[in-house]
Amino acid sequence: MNKIIRVNMKTKEVKIEEPKKDYELLGGRALTSRIIYDEVEPECDPLGEKNKLIIAPGLLSGTAVSSSSRISVGCKSPLTNGIKEANSGGLIGTYLSKNGIKAIVVESLPEDENSYILEIDEEKISLTFDNQLKFSGTYETVEKLFKKYGEDTAILCIGPAGERKMRAASIAATDPNGELKFAARGGVGAVMGSKGLKAIIVKNPKNSKINYYDREAFLELAKTINKELLADPKTGDSYKKYGTAQIVNAVNAIGALPTKNFKCGAFEFAKNLSGETMYDTIVKRGGEGKTGISCMPGCVIRCSNVYPDECGKKIVSTLQYETIALVGSNLGFSNLDSVAKLNKEINDLGLDTIEMGCVLGVAIDAGFAEYGNEESCLKLLEEIRKNTVLGRVLGNGVEITGKVLGANRIPAAKGQGFPGYDPRALKGNGVLYAISPMGADHTAGNAFGSRNEVNPLSKEKQGELSRNLQIKMTTLDSLGFCIFARGPLFKDPSTMKNLIYYYLGIEIETEKIWDMGINTLKIEREFNIKAGISPCMDKLPEFCYKEELPPTNAVFDVPEEEMKKAII
Amino acid sequence: MNKIIRVNMKTKEVKIEEPKKDYELLGGRALTSRIIYDEVEPECDPLGEKNKLIIAPGLLSGTAVSSSSRISVGCKSPLTNGIKEANSGGLIGTYLSKNGIKAIVVESLPEDENSYILEIDEEKISLTFDNQLKFSGTYETVEKLFKKYGEDTAILCIGPAGERKMRAASIAATDPNGELKFAARGGVGAVMGSKGLKAIIVKNPKNSKINYYDREAFLELAKTINKELLADPKTGDSYKKYGTAQIVNAVNAIGALPTKNFKCGAFEFAKNLSGETMYDTIVKRGGEGKTGISCMPGCVIRCSNVYPDECGKKIVSTLQYETIALVGSNLGFSNLDSVAKLNKEINDLGLDTIEMGCVLGVAIDAGFAEYGNEESCLKLLEEIRKNTVLGRVLGNGVEITGKVLGANRIPAAKGQGFPGYDPRALKGNGVLYAISPMGADHTAGNAFGSRNEVNPLSKEKQGELSRNLQIKMTTLDSLGFCIFARGPLFKDPSTMKNLIYYYLGIEIETEKIWDMGINTLKIEREFNIKAGISPCMDKLPEFCYKEELPPTNAVFDVPEEEMKKAII
Repeated sequence: MNKIIRVNMKTKEVKIEEPKKDYELLGGRALTSRIIYDEVEPECDPLGEKNKLIIAPGLLSGTAVSSSSRISVGCKSPLTNGIKEANSGGLIGTYLSKNGIKAIVVESLPEDENSYILEIDEEKISLTFDNQLKFSGTYETVEKLFKKYGEDTAILCIGPAGERKMRAASIAATDPNGELKFAARGGVGAVMGSKGLKAIIVKNPKNSKINYYDREAFLELAKTINKELLADPKTGDSYKKYGTAQIVNAVNAIGALPTKNFKCGAFEFAKNLSGETMYDTIVKRGGEGKTGISCMPGCVIRCSNVYPDECGKKIVSTLQYETIALVGSNLGFSNLDSVAKLNKEINDLGLDTIEMGCVLGVAIDAGFAEYGNEESCLKLLEEIRKNTVLGRVLGNGVEITGKVLGANRIPAAKGQGFPGYDPRALKGNGVLYAISPMGADHTAGNAFGSRNEVNPLSKEKQGELSRNLQIKMTTLDSLGFCIFARGPLFKDPSTMKNLIYYYLGIEIETEKIWDMGINTLKIEREFNIKAGISPCMDKLPEFCYKEELPPTNAVFDVPEEEMKKAII
Repeated sequence: MNKIIRVNMKTKEVKIEEPKKDYELLGGRALTSRIIYDEVEPECDPLGEKNKLIIAPGLLSGTAVSSSSRISVGCKSPLTNGIKEANSGGLIGTYLSKNGIKAIVVESLPEDENSYILEIDEEKISLTFDNQLKFSGTYETVEKLFKKYGEDTAILCIGPAGERKMRAASIAATDPNGELKFAARGGVGAVMGSKGLKAIIVKNPKNSKINYYDREAFLELAKTINKELLADPKTGDSYKKYGTAQIVNAVNAIGALPTKNFKCGAFEFAKNLSGETMYDTIVKRGGEGKTGISCMPGCVIRCSNVYPDECGKKIVSTLQYETIALVGSNLGFSNLDSVAKLNKEINDLGLDTIEMGCVLGVAIDAGFAEYGNEESCLKLLEEIRKNTVLGRVLGNGVEITGKVLGANRIPAAKGQGFPGYDPRALKGNGVLYAISPMGADHTAGNAFGSRNEVNPLSKEKQGELSRNLQIKMTTLDSLGFCIFARGPLFKDPSTMKNLIYYYLGIEIETEKIWDMGINTLKIEREFNIKAGISPCMDKLPEFCYKEELPPTNAVFDVPEEEMKKAII
């Protein structure tokens, strides 16, 4: 795994480069952020020619250890105006690694309006265009691309929202079942769209370039980890049945479930949206419905699902917690069918479900749709597809939507919509949304899993908690690991050190493992400060400090000194 | 002149306070910025309860010296997110001073939706509401208010754009002829709208509270200044005929006239838009047409006009350079009638003509209207009146418009649209737009008047030039002086010191006069930095650095070191 592919969208030149020596131990987020830090002017226009889109598999992506093949997408975000990394499951992390590709760097802007496709296979890398794909939804796009390039292909693509440079646009990645996963946040899809790149195609090479330094030891250790994951009731069983939706009831119980545009932290119909209800429905309906699907090759946790309609026909895969929270309770929906339908539509447009849940909540309060009314919400999404002015407003995220529609409360930090944990009732996440270089992004260090260690409503210890979680998550993001694999890795960090040694033959000290996260967070913050994101902006919106959130009636009140502890 | 009126829009309480001792020598911008610095949390939401709207006549407002009665309006700007002062001619500066009022501080947010009117007369100050004025245009508003409160009244009011908290909203001020002048920039009207304040009414008191320390000496000095102004061909004659439009040809000649969305710096029909053409047209058409009108009592420069239609019926008063540049050449109009009609409409909505010229230019390039097509532009303004989504996008200024409509070049700095001087061909203004705490605002230190001292196209000396101009303008803004009165004041700054002494009996050293500007600029920048406006944002948009501006083919290339010299 040692090539960097550099694609210039202006000249259409594709170059293959040797990575710098000091990129050796960098993968995933550590690498995307480092390349941005090294190559992108911090003050640049995120949708202009100076920004770059970086795609990098995690350091361990493609290896045999469970849940390690995530792909990171990085750029300067048009939503936060700071550095961004969004990662995703799917096949592409594995296939890039098997092709020996450490990163793809997409740079400059095209002077034409064609829909470009970057095709990577063992023998050649080529940039072609296919304007028949222009403005097609992500589902149609991958269907056509599978037909053209074969089923054993990993696809990364954008939908019409990304092509139209809407700031809430995501990037879709196909999984082993041809279903879509998303590098969703920060408007990474708009940056891909600004580059005129509709899709990246990566073929499964005949000869894998994944060469273990000590294959036997690696496989042995991987087996142990996989076993441990399976032995844990959560990763061994619960995720397979309930997926990420298993936390709906628990988030509701602590009063942090976004409900009706973040006006409440508990939803009377939360049970209807729970993982348990989801599982029962999928089992009862049968047909194409399914739980316990891996989104990456070799993942033993298998948290994905196919959610079917009453006739057993697939509505969407995969229905996840964040979507259920933002598009479900936050929009007043008391049934999963509506959530699934909206989810499908948002996916197809190539948008982030979290951001769009925030957007629709604000739009509902501004009178543009109704809580729990599927048709009214689908109509708004249709505006985005039609590229109307209202659609363009909504597709540009909750900050712009709120400003245009005159909202006096906008659930966003650093320009990015809140994920599925109200920061007033889960204060560790409030700290995270305000401080993280990623803006309001739970994947940067979700405090929900630590609710038994640190009281979610307390003002205390939240800074330190967030700091630790940020470091750990950034490290996992860099190795390519899914957060759900954290059990055995956090329990004994030498596991990670050993995986790296057995894979690459490079020895690092166990204590230095976290430096991967620390160093990355440091350069990310430095980049942001140079980009004009002043530390004065390490804040939540005003309503979080004064509007009490029922049922806990909490406000966000973590003192500044405590907040500062979360800065790395 | 010693009272501060504090109005709480939540409790509806009106308090009369003694100003702090150290506000003694502060007026206009120096006072609005100081009160904001002292009382407003820099990170607050500009449209939230923590922002305040400050209205303060200049230190010399209401006195007998020509051109000294301007009113300053200050707040945290919803457009730039930083501190803002916008000033205006009109009667209200004089009438507030005659009532002994040093400043009005409007704070908090109402919990009701009534249209409030603050009425100030000698005997009482009262806060009432009149919902019949809700969403009425500025012209209808002042007509009704004059009827109700009498003609000898100074009015400050907002139009529907301000009431709807659109970020390009201005505040209108009536002049001695009942015509409208505007504190136009930075969205000050949206802040007034957020407070639920539709208008401020100030009666002309029977007993003026303007008491000169040495009346005779003041009047003598004022007479000398007035004479000097009249002896200068520009202030004595040229402004009376051609108004501020006298510079159209000259700005065009240096290649800095905004043309077709800042894509060119010279306009082939500039002559048709010139002050000379305007004057000839007004004279030829006669009727209500008029030139040489004072916008403030006692002003001898008299640069205002009434621009009539072909039948001699007034279209708008007053047609000014910035509007001609932004709404004229920047929108491809080659006739003043169209500019006047659009001007009238923008005034009536209570919007800033500069910001709206930028907005319409971007909207035209996005296909929403046509260059030089009056009807298509009027239709867009009608969208704002109808409060449609498109209207709300446009009314929120050029930054939001550009983002929503997908523009890849947005002529704005720190969120505020460029005024009538392309920063590439008048580089001193490029420095100003980037560095000034006010964002892109020519009134903060316009380099155009210095074009014979510093080559507008040179990279050199622009920082120092801008620094000096900013200091001088901030001082004039604080004293209440119009920029056009600068001749005798800058020639011998002891004139200002003497005016202050004869008026207030307070002696200051001549060299300390400029401290008024310096100290104000310092606290403004400090406020902005605390508000999160990082010095990294002291930049122009990317296109200014790379897109050559015909006919000079200049790009903005002032080096960073030179830029930094403009920071006070």
